[in-house]
Amino acid sequence: MRKYEDDSLVLHTDLYQINMAETYWKDNIHNRKAVFEIFFRKMPFGNGYAIFAGLERMVEFIKNFGFTKSDLDYLKNELGYGEDFIEYLANMRFTGNIRAMKEGEIVFANEPIVRVEAPLAEAQLLETPLLNIINYQTLIATKASRIKQVIGDDQTALEFGTRRAQEMDAALWGTRAAFIGGFDATSNVRAGKLFGIPVSGTHAHAFVQAYIDEYTAFYKYAATHRDCVFLVDTYDTLKSGVPNAIKVAKEFGDQINFIGIRLDSGDMAYLSKEARKMLDEAGFHHTKIIASGDLDEYTILHLKQQGAKIDVWGVGTKLITAYDQPALGAVYKMVAIEDEYGNWMDTIKISSNPEKVTTPGLKKVYRIINVKNQKSEGDYIALEHERPQEEKRLKMFHPVHTFISKYVTNFEAKDLHENIFVNGEFVYKLPSVQDIQKYVKENLAVFWDEYKRSLNPENYPVDLSQACWDNKMRNIEKVKNKVAELLDHEENS
Amino acid sequence: MRKYEDDSLVLHTDLYQINMAETYWKDNIHNRKAVFEIFFRKMPFGNGYAIFAGLERMVEFIKNFGFTKSDLDYLKNELGYGEDFIEYLANMRFTGNIRAMKEGEIVFANEPIVRVEAPLAEAQLLETPLLNIINYQTLIATKASRIKQVIGDDQTALEFGTRRAQEMDAALWGTRAAFIGGFDATSNVRAGKLFGIPVSGTHAHAFVQAYIDEYTAFYKYAATHRDCVFLVDTYDTLKSGVPNAIKVAKEFGDQINFIGIRLDSGDMAYLSKEARKMLDEAGFHHTKIIASGDLDEYTILHLKQQGAKIDVWGVGTKLITAYDQPALGAVYKMVAIEDEYGNWMDTIKISSNPEKVTTPGLKKVYRIINVKNQKSEGDYIALEHERPQEEKRLKMFHPVHTFISKYVTNFEAKDLHENIFVNGEFVYKLPSVQDIQKYVKENLAVFWDEYKRSLNPENYPVDLSQACWDNKMRNIEKVKNKVAELLDHEENS
Repeated sequence: MRKYEDDSLVLHTDLYQINMAETYWKDNIHNRKAVFEIFFRKMPFGNGYAIFAGLERMVEFIKNFGFTKSDLDYLKNELGYGEDFIEYLANMRFTGNIRAMKEGEIVFANEPIVRVEAPLAEAQLLETPLLNIINYQTLIATKASRIKQVIGDDQTALEFGTRRAQEMDAALWGTRAAFIGGFDATSNVRAGKLFGIPVSGTHAHAFVQAYIDEYTAFYKYAATHRDCVFLVDTYDTLKSGVPNAIKVAKEFGDQINFIGIRLDSGDMAYLSKEARKMLDEAGFHHTKIIASGDLDEYTILHLKQQGAKIDVWGVGTKLITAYDQPALGAVYKMVAIEDEYGNWMDTIKISSNPEKVTTPGLKKVYRIINVKNQKSEGDYIALEHERPQEEKRLKMFHPVHTFISKYVTNFEAKDLHENIFVNGEFVYKLPSVQDIQKYVKENLAVFWDEYKRSLNPENYPVDLSQACWDNKMRNIEKVKNKVAELLDHEENS
Repeated sequence: MRKYEDDSLVLHTDLYQINMAETYWKDNIHNRKAVFEIFFRKMPFGNGYAIFAGLERMVEFIKNFGFTKSDLDYLKNELGYGEDFIEYLANMRFTGNIRAMKEGEIVFANEPIVRVEAPLAEAQLLETPLLNIINYQTLIATKASRIKQVIGDDQTALEFGTRRAQEMDAALWGTRAAFIGGFDATSNVRAGKLFGIPVSGTHAHAFVQAYIDEYTAFYKYAATHRDCVFLVDTYDTLKSGVPNAIKVAKEFGDQINFIGIRLDSGDMAYLSKEARKMLDEAGFHHTKIIASGDLDEYTILHLKQQGAKIDVWGVGTKLITAYDQPALGAVYKMVAIEDEYGNWMDTIKISSNPEKVTTPGLKKVYRIINVKNQKSEGDYIALEHERPQEEKRLKMFHPVHTFISKYVTNFEAKDLHENIFVNGEFVYKLPSVQDIQKYVKENLAVFWDEYKRSLNPENYPVDLSQACWDNKMRNIEKVKNKVAELLDHEENS
């Protein structure tokens, strides 16, 4: 690996972004303003909602956006870009506007989470890193929320996934996302240091193996730590682990907090019930039972249904990798660009797959809150100039099955976007991760339960305004006509 | 996020490692040597082999291992560790020995990839980061090799996954692992800068949308780049994209290299065949067809079977996240520890799941190569003192179904471990990633084809020596007796 003192993250992008920027610059359209939107097309895990995460990391990236000498040397000397273009890149900073949802916002498929409005070349260069950040962190926050919903607010959820995460950044930012999604603590110490997340953990099997026997290991741990959770499955959970834990706890009495025992293998339903009995019989009614080992929302639900006596859930691999769907497919699509006279021109991408046809134009996204019950009626995507908050009666219709529609009255239309950067200047105050977690919890109350169940939730409405819909149809028509013209021309030539 | 000038990766670990180290230190056993092995229990993706990756990153981590002031401040002030222990940590460096397989080695389940022999506390603190690194990189190198085997050496495999990777490190180290596994190039520019991997990419849909029409976009690209690959599916692949690409290529003639067109949506089998015809009819026989969009070894195999005319395969999400199995479950298990007199004492972990019972003792792993045909007969795990390379006739038997056995004669026993650190000193020379890729290719030739097919490969033998097996049985017996003693004692007391 080559090492550079001035290594930056700006080259953490796809090569085509730089090649496109080169053409824009040579063609002198690099400073035309363009608008790109980030959205995903399908709810992850079949969940009824997702939780947006990644804003802080994204802001950090944009604030530091700029090519360093070693970046430029590589582009020039190894990839052969010309001097003039390199000089242009050397001076490039982010000068555009970014509007985005709050971190922790409840989000849905097909609505713009982030809107980048910037000189074309700058906006282009942000695509890859922004998607990389948002795709992963949103995925994990959503997975964590699903799992935490099954665990419940009366029980504790611990993130234990570092060793199985997809490299270091995933472990670090993944545990932050898990905290946003509702997890209570993590085993990752660096996440504790950098984000102030509570950290948790006592000992592993190796600790028991390091001593002559299990009893000695527990004894030594208790002799050196006030808070004790004993891992009881190194040799035999019920015959050796739990009895040794109880023996040591009795010997130490008030000198330790016998917080819990941890089960890491075997039949958790059976073992937890037996262990609970043994603890209770010994008088340790407040000692908790912690379970870990390949848990996810499905295994937890079934263990609960079987009456497992588990109080604390340590979730690793299945959370930190989003095992059952390890990627969120968020995309970054151009919806408008200035023409040579500085007027906005809508852009569209057509696809043989109707869900992949983009929705053109500068847009805003509103959450339509019913004033009476403070529940959300759906999200409403409107063109920039529309003012749904001033309307008395809003027609909301399904963006694919347009004949399905409803009228809403007595509502508030809440603009879901915040200004993050204005003319390249950072204008937002990032909340702490604790505040974000709180925001998620409060915000979930705005949605009816049918959108929040983990299996087969109702589809939450994300609708287009009539004007937005009409504009999309006009743009599709325009492209079709152009393609037809081209064919006519080919056939006649 | 809190920012520290001296932030390090040493806290990228689970909290329990630090709590265990604290007990070891207070109990004054922190300097007893312990041996840990890293291995995984199940072949990923049901593949017949895996490819070890992660050594370089692991070496980097260990070289830089050490707590910084801000690390120590956090541990002391926020987590409440005592002054003396903090002082001990402040002076901690890695002083042990590490033996590991070469990066790019073909590896199998249940054999030690890495062996850490170090003072107990140091070895303990390496567990989480080493597993984190090796689990991910080995997973991706293996996935890449599977995919490249289907693509074949006569065609090109491109890594396109950055935007869907699980955060930035995964994109970067994942594409390096993909290169090790046989991929030819990546879209990630920073990977090109840091590892010298070839980078690849021309333009995206947004580029086409940025211009008044597709023809103009292709024209502008050709006017500013010699090497052209046109993305042809923004509006309509066969009616608009391919004709426009051909038109521009004809206009520019020798001024450009019309390297290819890229298909990113739609039916790739049909579209590639039609596009091939159109290109051939226009005289562009050497122009390649590149496909991208949710590809993996299964879709590629089926496209080839359908006669798709695709020359270059861009693989993203499914590779960089190892979508069908996004975690490798490698573990770090203690196999021996010094007793108070400095003698090695074997350690074992028992489990109700027989595959999870560890194999105790200091061990080496050999590849048994048949001298006649230079093919491997299997891997052979022996105790440290054994010398299988000096034996004339080696008995190899199945480590679970022990009645299945064979005798091998006329063989070479190749020790698969290299010395990486000796007494804390780095003694190895890391090869370039290009040399690692070459090593993988050459090394794969040592294995019969039945181990390399992507569906239902034969199980490659990874056997224990008789002495190693006997030692394991002795240790299991010892633990059983101890647990029985404990029960007797409980019942009699």
